[in-house]
Amino acid sequence: MGMGLELNTLLVTKGKEIRVDDNLFQLEKEGYRLYPIHTPIEVKTTKKSPSRGYAKIEKIQWHEDKTTIFYQLISLNTTN
Amino acid sequence: MGMGLELNTLLVTKGKEIRVDDNLFQLEKEGYRLYPIHTPIEVKTTKKSPSRGYAKIEKIQWHEDKTTIFYQLISLNTTN
Amino acid sequence: MGMGLELNTLLVTKGKEIRVDDNLFQLEKEGYRLYPIHTPIEVKTTKKSPSRGYAKIEKIQWHEDKTTIFYQLISLNTTN
Amino acid sequence: MGMGLELNTLLVTKGKEIRVDDNLFQLEKEGYRLYPIHTPIEVKTTKKSPSRGYAKIEKIQWHEDKTTIFYQLISLNTTN
Repeated sequence: MGMGLELNTLLVTKGKEIRVDDNLFQLEKEGYRLYPIHTPIEVKTTKKSPSRGYAKIEKIQWHEDKTTIFYQLISLNTTN
Repeated sequence: MGMGLELNTLLVTKGKEIRVDDNLFQLEKEGYRLYPIHTPIEVKTTKKSPSRGYAKIEKIQWHEDKTTIFYQLISLNTTN
Repeated sequence: MGMGLELNTLLVTKGKEIRVDDNLFQLEKEGYRLYPIHTPIEVKTTKKSPSRGYAKIEKIQWHEDKTTIFYQLISLNTTN
Repeated sequence: MGMGLELNTLLVTKGKEIRVDDNLFQLEKEGYRLYPIHTPIEVKTTKKSPSRGYAKIEKIQWHEDKTTIFYQLISLNTTN
């Protein structure tokens, strides 16, 4: 009845991120999702894969049952 | 993957509320649900039934995939 | 330390809404705010003013400590 | 006007946790805070201190402008 949300503490890209600028990425996820914004958040390719580094989310958009996230990478695990 | 939440703006009791004190009621709902606390919220028996009045939620507890709400009725629609 | 959010159950416009299309309005609010999307939500000019009707939020955007809401009016209280 | 919330992705104890059972801790925080439940969450003593390990939150309670968290430690960084 209410509005379904998902609280997320990791950014799981599944390789679907799109580079929109030098260090700005766009990622679309199904459903309405809540992520911390302007806070370092760990980035992984899949839920179980090793950490790829940290991102800072700059913008979140909810529309038509999708969440679009715009983020910058702030640190990279180069060994992965 | 993340934590599922439901954002609610109505208190739908389905007649399952328990009176724990003079004007204090306890209601258990499935899943983790977010309601505004200390704000008047409309009370209905079912989603489609007429308004029964307004409540103020005093306490919310999340445990074992259930949400327990403690609320006071602050106004009643006596004609319903 | 975490991310501040405000859970809202009313759409208070303060007369700042912008009509972007026939029945589509855009409203910018300070801070990051959570509103129910695709659910009827009451519209008021100020918190204490009478109800102006109901809206359905189509899109919410969080960016630079502002929340931008795109909504359609679904019913109007013509007497106000 | 709405209800203020804080979205948290770390459990910062400030040494105020109380052991209520073998591996069950209780922690009270100011304000209404949202944490992921049943998901590993990093534990630190202060925001800037090293990681102490991971916890799983079992129960969250919101009451009188305080959040009470019940959690189990699921892994410890013994070198810290």
